[in-house]
This record gives sequence, C-alpha cells and structure tokens, in this order.
Amino acid sequence: MDQCLGDTTPDEVLIPMQTDGSFLMSDDRVREPLLAASKRAMNTTSQTAIVGTKRCTIESLDYEVVENDLFKEDWRTKTRVQIFKYVCMKWSLALLVGLITGLVGFFNNFAVENIAGFKLLLTSNLMLKERYHAAFVAYVGCNLLLATVAAALCAYIAPAAAGSGIPEVKAYLNGVDSHSILAPGTLLVKIFGSIFGVSAGFVLGKEGPMVHTGACVASLLSQGGSRKYHLTWRSLQYIKNDRDRRDLITCGAAAGVAAAFRAPVGGVLFALEEATTWWRNALLWRTFFTNAVVAVVLRSLIVYCRGGKCGLFGKGGLIMFDMSSTVSTYSTADLLAVMILRKGAVFKIIHTMSISLLTSCCSYGIPWLARCTPCRSGNFKNFQCPPGHYNDLASLFLNTNEDAIRNLFSGNTGNEFDISTLILFFIAVYCLGLVTYGIAVPSGLFIPVILAGASFGRLVGTILGPISDLDPAIFALLGAASLLGGTMRMTVSVCVILLELTDDLLMLPLVMLVLLISKSVADNFNIGVYDLMIQMKGLPYLEAHAEPYMRHLVAHDVVSGPLLTFFGVEKVGNIIQILKTTGHHGFPVINEPPFSEAPELCGLVLRSHLIVLLKGKRFTKDKVLTGSTEVFKSFGSFDFAKAGPGKGMKLEELEISADEMEMYVDLHPITNKSPYTVVETMSLAKAALLFRELGLRHLFVVPKTPGKPPVVGILTRHDFMREHILGLFPHFNQRKKMNEEQT
Amino acid sequence: MDQCLGDTTPDEVLIPMQTDGSFLMSDDRVREPLLAASKRAMNTTSQTAIVGTKRCTIESLDYEVVENDLFKEDWRTKTRVQIFKYVCMKWSLALLVGLITGLVGFFNNFAVENIAGFKLLLTSNLMLKERYHAAFVAYVGCNLLLATVAAALCAYIAPAAAGSGIPEVKAYLNGVDSHSILAPGTLLVKIFGSIFGVSAGFVLGKEGPMVHTGACVASLLSQGGSRKYHLTWRSLQYIKNDRDRRDLITCGAAAGVAAAFRAPVGGVLFALEEATTWWRNALLWRTFFTNAVVAVVLRSLIVYCRGGKCGLFGKGGLIMFDMSSTVSTYSTADLLAVMILRKGAVFKIIHTMSISLLTSCCSYGIPWLARCTPCRSGNFKNFQCPPGHYNDLASLFLNTNEDAIRNLFSGNTGNEFDISTLILFFIAVYCLGLVTYGIAVPSGLFIPVILAGASFGRLVGTILGPISDLDPAIFALLGAASLLGGTMRMTVSVCVILLELTDDLLMLPLVMLVLLISKSVADNFNIGVYDLMIQMKGLPYLEAHAEPYMRHLVAHDVVSGPLLTFFGVEKVGNIIQILKTTGHHGFPVINEPPFSEAPELCGLVLRSHLIVLLKGKRFTKDKVLTGSTEVFKSFGSFDFAKAGPGKGMKLEELEISADEMEMYVDLHPITNKSPYTVVETMSLAKAALLFRELGLRHLFVVPKTPGKPPVVGILTRHDFMREHILGLFPHFNQRKKMNEEQT
Repeated sequence: MDQCLGDTTPDEVLIPMQTDGSFLMSDDRVREPLLAASKRAMNTTSQTAIVGTKRCTIESLDYEVVENDLFKEDWRTKTRVQIFKYVCMKWSLALLVGLITGLVGFFNNFAVENIAGFKLLLTSNLMLKERYHAAFVAYVGCNLLLATVAAALCAYIAPAAAGSGIPEVKAYLNGVDSHSILAPGTLLVKIFGSIFGVSAGFVLGKEGPMVHTGACVASLLSQGGSRKYHLTWRSLQYIKNDRDRRDLITCGAAAGVAAAFRAPVGGVLFALEEATTWWRNALLWRTFFTNAVVAVVLRSLIVYCRGGKCGLFGKGGLIMFDMSSTVSTYSTADLLAVMILRKGAVFKIIHTMSISLLTSCCSYGIPWLARCTPCRSGNFKNFQCPPGHYNDLASLFLNTNEDAIRNLFSGNTGNEFDISTLILFFIAVYCLGLVTYGIAVPSGLFIPVILAGASFGRLVGTILGPISDLDPAIFALLGAASLLGGTMRMTVSVCVILLELTDDLLMLPLVMLVLLISKSVADNFNIGVYDLMIQMKGLPYLEAHAEPYMRHLVAHDVVSGPLLTFFGVEKVGNIIQILKTTGHHGFPVINEPPFSEAPELCGLVLRSHLIVLLKGKRFTKDKVLTGSTEVFKSFGSFDFAKAGPGKGMKLEELEISADEMEMYVDLHPITNKSPYTVVETMSLAKAALLFRELGLRHLFVVPKTPGKPPVVGILTRHDFMREHILGLFPHFNQRKKMNEEQT
Repeated sequence: MDQCLGDTTPDEVLIPMQTDGSFLMSDDRVREPLLAASKRAMNTTSQTAIVGTKRCTIESLDYEVVENDLFKEDWRTKTRVQIFKYVCMKWSLALLVGLITGLVGFFNNFAVENIAGFKLLLTSNLMLKERYHAAFVAYVGCNLLLATVAAALCAYIAPAAAGSGIPEVKAYLNGVDSHSILAPGTLLVKIFGSIFGVSAGFVLGKEGPMVHTGACVASLLSQGGSRKYHLTWRSLQYIKNDRDRRDLITCGAAAGVAAAFRAPVGGVLFALEEATTWWRNALLWRTFFTNAVVAVVLRSLIVYCRGGKCGLFGKGGLIMFDMSSTVSTYSTADLLAVMILRKGAVFKIIHTMSISLLTSCCSYGIPWLARCTPCRSGNFKNFQCPPGHYNDLASLFLNTNEDAIRNLFSGNTGNEFDISTLILFFIAVYCLGLVTYGIAVPSGLFIPVILAGASFGRLVGTILGPISDLDPAIFALLGAASLLGGTMRMTVSVCVILLELTDDLLMLPLVMLVLLISKSVADNFNIGVYDLMIQMKGLPYLEAHAEPYMRHLVAHDVVSGPLLTFFGVEKVGNIIQILKTTGHHGFPVINEPPFSEAPELCGLVLRSHLIVLLKGKRFTKDKVLTGSTEVFKSFGSFDFAKAGPGKGMKLEELEISADEMEMYVDLHPITNKSPYTVVETMSLAKAALLFRELGLRHLFVVPKTPGKPPVVGILTRHDFMREHILGLFPHFNQRKKMNEEQT
C-alpha cells in the first residue's frame, strides 16, 4: 500500500480507519466488544495530514519500551560486547550525521554561490555593455529555468520536500510519523530543490530545508541498513527502535541549523527550544558532539576553498537565515498558500513560475528608481550607474539574499542606503516573502524574515539617525532579531544564532530586550509560525500542557470506538481477521480462565509483533501455553525490532492455510506486560500529562470498580486532540484562551 | 520541631521514621495493615542528608496537582481577573528575582573588590616602604580576620550556607526539600560569608554561592508572604504550590549564574543543563526574561560606577568562575572534606583559620622565589621588585583570583610568565583548591578550576611556544575549558559562559573540541562533581534514567513498610493517632460498603490537608457523607495551599477534645481522586520512569488480580534509591556500569 495518497482523493481518505466491531463477528465464538458500541463515540479526527504539499497517512511512533518476555530475555543475555557495540554505534552514527550534514551544507552553499554568482555575473556583464534588455531577458530566463526545475522536482518526485520542513520535523519529533517526511526521495529533492530555489532569486532561504535535510540524513542512517540495496550491516541493527531514531534525528536537525548558519551552539539550542518534544541531557551532549563535527567539517572545507579552488564560492562568509513576514499576517497568507498547495502538479509549477517572474521583475525593475551614489567598500552593485558609483537599490535587490543582508548589517557606513530605498525594499521583500512561502519548492523562512526585519530596522535607524548614537547597522540587527522573535517565538536560540553570526557579544542585552518585547507582543495575537503550520497541515501535535477543559473530563469520557481484545492464547483466524479489518496498532491481551482465576489484563500486543509472530507459525492445535522458550528458538533478537518507516512486514505477506486459521497461538511471549494504565475516573488532564511525558502510543483505561471487564478502552494520540474532545463536548469551547498560561 | 538536627545526634536521626503498624491498634476497630508487616521490607534509607555542613531532615516536594473536590471547585469558580492576577504575579516575581539577584551580585562584587583591594593596597604600600614583615603581618592578619568572620557566620548562624550550594539547589529542583536549604538565614550568611571568604584570599569563587543566593531570593519571594512579619499581601498567595516555586527557583539559579559571570545566556543554559530536573520551554522563556533583567541591572550599575563613585570597584571587568581540581581526585578529597564538616563549630573555625594561614603563606611566601622582570601593561605586581619591574609570581598569587585569571588570559604578551612560575602556581592552586573546598564558608568551585586549568593551559602553551602559532592565552582558555568540562561535565553552558566572558567567538570550535575530549575522558572515571557531592551528602536524587537492575524487578518487589489507609469517612481519633505515630505525608483513602459496592481505591489524601481539615472541625456523630459544599463553607481557597518550608500548620496546634475523637470526618472533599497508579507487576524501571517524569511524591501500587485489597502499597522517592533496592536485592550490584549508557 502506498503510504502517501494522491492529491485527488482527499475525501476517501478522511474516512476513519476504525470499523465497527460487529462486522468481525463471523467467528464461531461470540465476542462482543467490551463496551457496547452505542455507548461509545467514534473518533473521527483525520488519520492523514499534509506533509510538504501532499496529503499522507500518519501514524504514531512507538517510544515505549516493549517489556515483553523477548525483550527481557534479550536484556538478560546481552553481553558486554553487545552493549559496547550499541554505544559505539550510537556515537558513530552521531558522528556520521554531523559529517554528512556538514558536507551537504557546504555543497549547498557551494552550488548556490556558483549558480547564483554565474547568473548575476552574466546579467551585470550585459549591463556593463548597456544591453539592458538582454540583461533583463538573461536574468528572468535564468530565474525562470531554475524555478521551474525546482518546482518540477517537488511536484513530480517528492511533494513532501516542499516548504520549510521544520513543521514536519517538529511533528516527527513529537511522535507523528509519515513515511514521506524523511524518505530518501524527500532528501534528494530537498537538497536540489533548495539549491535551485535559492539560486532562482526567490525571497526564501536554505536554512529551514537544511534542518529537514539533516533530519533526513539521520533517519536514513538509523534505518538499520536496507534489504533492498543489500546494506544489512549487522551492527546497524542495534538502532532498531523509535527512541534511538528520535535521538539521532534530533542530532540531525541540530546539525542542519549548525551547517546552515555555521552556528553550532545555536543549532543545539534550536533543537532544544524549537524542534524536540522530549529532551534529555544526554541528548544535549550528543547534539553538541554532532554540531562540533559539523563546525570542523565546514571550517576545513572553507579553509580549503580560500585558495579559489571552488569557483565563485567566496569566503563562505556569514551564511544566513530563512523565514517569511510579521506577526499577525501569517494565518491568512499561509492558509492561502496551503490551499494552493492542494492543487495539481502542473498548477504548482505554473504558480512557482509566476512568482519567479514577479520576483525577477521586482529585482530588476525597482532598482531603476534609485539614484547613483559614489562608491564605498562592500559588495555593492553599480547597475546602470557609471564606474565609481553604485545603485543602492540594486545592491539590495539584484544580489543574493545573503549579500543583501550583509549590506544591511554593514556598519560604520553612515547613510549608504537612502530612506526611500529602505522603504521600497522593505515593502517589496515583505510582500514577496508572503507570496513566496506558498510555492512548491523547499523554502526556508529565516532569510525573508531577516531581510524584512533588517531593512525595517535600518529604516528606523536611518530615520532616527540625527537623534541616536547607534549605528544603523545595529538597528538592522535588532530589527532582524525582533522580527525573528515575533514570528518564530524562539528566544535563546535566536539570540545565540545571531551572536554566532555577527560575532558581536556587546549587542546581547539589546538583542534580548527586543526579543522579549517582540515575543510578548506577538504572543497576544497568535502562536508561532511553525505551530501554525503544524495546525494547518493537520499534524496531530501533542502539546506540553494539558488544556484546561481536560480538567473537567475523565479518561472514560473520551475513550472511543469498539474495543477489540485478544485472549492470551488466541485463535489464529481471529487475529488475522481483526488485523485485516482494523487499522489499530495495539491491542489489549486478556487472560481468562483457565489461565487466570478471573479475566485480567495481561498486557499490550503490537500489530507489528503479531505479524512477525504469525509468520513464525508456532501454532498449536489446542488452547495451551507454548511458553517463551519455544518462541525464542524461532526468532532472533532483531526480528521483532521496529523496522524503518514503510519497511515493516506486511499483513498481506502472510500465507496462512485454512487449517492453520483454526489453530491457536500463545501471545504471552510478545505481550508487553507492563503497559501504563489509568483508572477510568482519572482526570483527562492528568492522563494527558502521563501520555505526553512518557511519550506513549497506547494508554489503557482500566475500570475503577472490580468485577467489570479488565479494560475499558485505549487512549491514543488522536483521543487527546482538541477536535476530537471538543467534538464530543462542544460546550468546552470557551474559557480556553485565558486559562492557557495556567497549566 | 527544629527542621535541622544538631551535629551531635547523628545516630538518633538515622532511625527510620516509619513505625510498625501494630503499634497503632489500640483502637476499638481492628485494623490490620493491608499486607502483613512480616512480608514487607522496611525502607531503611536515611530520611536525613547533609545540607551545607549540617545534617537535616529531608522531605519530598509535592509537584502533583491535587485534584480533589476543592481544587475542582476552585478551578470552576476562578474568574478571569484571578487568572490574570496569577499570570501577572508569576512574571512580576520573575522580574523581582532578576532585579534582586542582579543587585546582590553587584553588591557582592562591589564589597569584595573594596575589601580585597584595601587589603592588597595596604600590603603593597608597606612593601613599597620595604617593611616586608609588617606587610606579611598585615596581609595574614586581614586574611585571618576575614576568614574567621566568614567561618563563624557559617558555623553559628547557618551551617547550610557552607560550600558551593549548587548540589543543594540541584537536589531541591529534583524534588528534595529541607527547610534550611533556602531559608532566610542561609541567604544572609551565603551573601556575607561569600564576601568575606573571597576577600580573605582563599582559592575559591563567589559563583556557586551566587547560584544559591539567587535560588534563596526566589524561594523567599515565593513563600506567599510571611505571617510572622505581617506581610500577607493577598496576590502573593497565588504562588502557593511547589510547581510554581520550582519554576521561580529555577529562574533564581539561572539569575545567579548570570549575575556572577555577567553571562545571561550562559545562565539560562546552566539552569537547563545542570540545575533543573524538569524542564519546560515556558521555563526557558521565563529564565531568559529574568536573566535579561539581571544583565540590564548589572550594566546600569557598572555604568554608574565608572565615574569612580564606588571606591575601589573597578570597571567590574570580567567576573569569573568557581570550582576545585581534576578528574579523578575528587572522591577522596571531598570525602575528607565532608568528614571534617561533621565536627563542631569551633573545629570548623579553627580549620578555616588554618587553611587561611596556609593560603596566606603561599600567597606571600612563594613570590619571593621569582625574578624581577621589566614591566608590561596589565594588572601586575612589583612586589619586592624595583619600580618599572614586576614579579610574575606575585602577579598571580598576591592578587584577587579574578585578576590572576585575567593575567593568565591576557594575550599578545608573549612569555610574561616564566615556566617555573606557571608550574609553581598550578601546583599551589591545585592543592589549595583541594583543601579549601572543605572549609565551612560559602565556596564556589568555578574559580579554582579555572585558575588551575588556565595556569596548566598556559604552561603547556608556553612550553609548546616554539612549535605552536597559538598564543599562550588561548592555551590558558582551552585549559580552563577542559578542566571545567572534566570536573562539572557541563558542555554547552560552559561553552557559552566562556564565550560570554572572553568575547571571542572564533575560539568556539576549539573550545568545543577540548570540552568533548575532557568530558569523554572524565566520564570513564566517575560522575560530575556536583553529582558526587549530592551522593556524599546523602541527598536522594532521582536520576533521569532507570537503573538496569530495575528492569528485573517489579513494583511490588520494593514496596515497603506496613501500609496505613484511611476510610472515606474516618474516625477523628484514628486520623490523629496515625498522624502522630508516623511521618508519612500521603495516605490512600479506601471506600468501603455502604459507600461503594466493594472496597475500592478512592484516592490520595495528604497529611497537610488532613491537619487543615481537622482544624476546621466539620465532624459528624455518625458515619455519613457531609459532601463538599459543607467543607467549602468552612475553608477559603488558599487554606489548603501548600505553605512554604517550615511554615505549615503543625499537628501539635490541633486541639481536639475526647468527644471529638470519637466523631467522624468525611475525607472525600480533600481526597485527590486522580492519583497515578501502577499495577504491582509493572516493571520497576517503568514505574521509576513514570515517577520521575511526572515528578510524583506518592505512587500507588494496585493489585493485578481483582478481589484483593485495592492498594498494595505506596512508592515514594526513597523506594527508588539505589541503597534501598540493592539492600533488598544485593545480587544486582553488578553489570551496572556497562549498562548505564543504554537506558
């Protein structure tokens, strides 16, 4: 089954994957759902979300340690050598992630500077010969070509690679999985799409995509090799669970920031403040290591390139940010963008091309409005001006985004930019940034925000020039910081990233101050841009705090669907049928007489483990316990390990004969006998806290009074989503906003 | 009852506070402990620990939201204005913490620079007149006087103020409370003891104490006023729970680092990396705000002082670190120190005086060994040398620690320090640092570590001078970084603090590299110095990961003591008796017929709430439900709020008549009906994870099979301690080390 769905079938997809329990009861045994379906609400929240520009099925990740007999046996028999190998593996992979991300980051910059440099050189050479129309055609042509290639890559090969990628990575680290978020195709398109997109002169950055790239690299390395390409190095298999993958992908995201901004400490803080949901101090240490590797790789390569061996690649100077616009305008603009993204591939390409055309016209057209000024040092453009003079508008517009930022940040130059220039540039960049983020190429948000913030700050600085002692460059830095703080709501990481970029620690108190103000003001209007994107894309993100209305509900109130359970020793046919007809990933296992005195909860069994167990065919004719030792003989320790996304064994691969269908299988060896449980009268807020803090996928709700069936239901991520709960209890849809601070 | 115990009664204290259940059964009703005491292990881990130099009783903090009827009613009736006030209060307190900590930090530096400056001026003036013996007497006399005052303050007023304070703060933020950790007396002695201690010329710093000071300030502000001093401003009472206090104290600790090093971002990272156990992104934002306030306060005061208005207080330059020695030598040296700390007050003072004498002799005596060298710029001492010359040993020894570090870090000066000078200084500082940390004055660890690391680094740099291009100053910085990393095992925060101190971002990759190496090497030998101190002081610290042996145990295995329970409607006499004879802070409440069909777990009731309820005297003659509304009439919403340490209502304050003893009281309104529970067969590792991640104080263990009593036992912090578990199951005392990385 394809994990991602075509763009044409959104309705079909929205049908919830749970089916009615009664449908299954063609069995010889009467099995009723433990609670009558009529009493239970269905969970109708969507099981799909938008990843990049494509609607994909989403699943939760398994962070819980599955403490079944196999795990315990494995744990007991683990040798020192194996443990040592495992630890080495983790660190080697962290090293590799740093190495590869550093290389990719360098390659990105190298490619962009060469392509964009060639394009700008061509244009300015034509202009020097006063062939202005030819220059325009060359400039627009190059941009259009690059934009089309980028859009085509995204539209046809990996729609998941479009956009910044940070919301998707953030959602993944919150426990939301979709095959395409971190697939190899996504990685390739992300890299090349980003290169072409940035080279095409759009108002977008390569930093968000770098975060996604780092995460993809880490994900690929943590797959435990690939059977398809015969890369099944045994040591790789030690990393076969979602917890270790999560850690490595956190390292990858941090490495992405480090590579994009050359800000290793900022990268660690970004991972901590923005990206991850579950943070451990061990992770701080590992991301720090990865980022140190990135820093060393970048440094060495830049030193190597200094000799002019890398074409137009300069001293690699300050490599900058990416993002788009101000505080209160996101919702509408982004909504528009997301709506456009739903259209077909051809539309996406045309859309991208038109934005490209618009951007090119602005870049080439607006500078004609400026006067010529005598030259100063810096990367300035003379455009139509005579030698020895420069055009200040062209120095901002007809330049790479990084160089424009560098020009805005350049100090001790007095009023090198006219007030009208700054106003024009601010408005143009702000508007272009708004429309550009919607196009279907990998597009970061940092650069547009910094461009707009810096030009606005410099504008204020220039206006206040007569009455202020501060350099306009400092105003530009503060403007960039405040717009970043207002849009992304990150504080410490923006602070450190800006410090690492500008190498000016004296600015720290001022930067902190503007960040405080901008974040406080912006928080009154809406949430951060990445969180908004996550909401719009429909990714089921678990918030850190419980919502206030959850205090008024108990766990039992939101339990949904008919509950399907297995017995400790279960008929093969039943298992197959339930697996076929539901999409659930975990089932309660109930012990009944004669295996226990009364019906009691034995534990939790996972769909993937069931499939592996059935494949092993350790069936018995009668309803008896086979015990764990039997099972250990048939399976190795990695057979039950969680496969990478889209790589696990499929139900369809099983070949079970009709005879076998009537046989029994002992589920005890693969049952996680320590599932977390809450009593049905537990307040939902506290259940949510438990679910989120421990990173669970399934949480059992057990009855309060003895004598009832041993499980009332299972809570999953979707049951804690606002839409589900407010759908069941619409009257809670108030008092929310004010209470938010309180939890 | 005094919360801290005299030094003379260590044995008495070690008797566990739990008593045998059968002792209580003089009641008319026969109540058996739910599990026979014979089957249960007693928890014999100590309920006391060393705070500063004093053995104190310790308790756990209540972070769990007590969801009883009162809380729910309170939640329902909360107005928008109240919520707004609460949020405002939190931020105002964060602001106040920043303000006060900034002021205290400035005052500390101001006082130290004036006192130490006066002392050094006096000495060098006498030396200029070649009155060397008088100079020696003056120098030693000043030091001895200051040291004695500092030691006397610590020994007689607040023994909890001795030492760095970081281990205590770290333990507090982990949920371990002791009245004296953050008491007002501790704060005062910490401030003045630190000033006198640093001025006395010891090899110790004021930075650890500043962290403790910041935490104390925050704690005092979060007490909700003081009845004793009639400061009962109503709004203050909104912060009447341990979660909010924890948040504020985290801000305080971060502000302490910010004030000590003038490193606001480093302070935030210190709080995150080293201090806190439970971190939330909201906290990042709040600590960042507090530290911005600190930065602004410090900056303004320093600008104010620049006009020479603050006596000898200089430009406040780089204010530096505090800590003591290298990797593998801690355990023994510190153990010695801790043992000495157990002695009486007079001994402590004599000990401090002798160390002071030793330090003074080293500082004054060793510089005679040096040759005179022609002067350069910098804060150099000419000691016995003629004008225009300086004594390089005196420039390190006979100087404040900050100036010595500044001299070691000063670049572009070539070989201003002789190799022999550096060797002598390194050995002296290293040894003095080792013995100094044991004295009973507030003593930080950063400065000694930086001094030793920098001198060692500079030594290496000077030796490698002929073959290396790097300045010896850079070697000094790297040496300091690596010794800091090796001792404290902090990475990102040390990195950022050093960057903020030296204002040199180009060093970042090198600093990261040495930190990586030193931490990796040190991790092979032992744990970080603060964790070692926590272990030695016997503070029951909950680790982030579950120990491997916990995987082999289930919750039921470690449950201890006879379990004492209350019924939903309970006889007053029973409650009083159980409260009097045990030290437990939480009890299960069981519903029995006629209030339920079968015995079932109703929830958890806290000792403090019971006492408040009993004081209200809403008793009934018969065993009936009074309901919540009755109770709401008698109590305000803050009556049950958790009081500050040592301020809650005492059991002895209750006056219950013999008649009332025979009456009943309904516990339902104050029962937390959503306690977290684990099934008795839950693996201990997963129970520990739940306990730690949710910051619990009591965790109920419930039976697996129906029909048994509804609670098997309660797990508390002490039940997860290594000593307790390994005491019960000694055979697990192996395989530990290797498995550590794995969890």
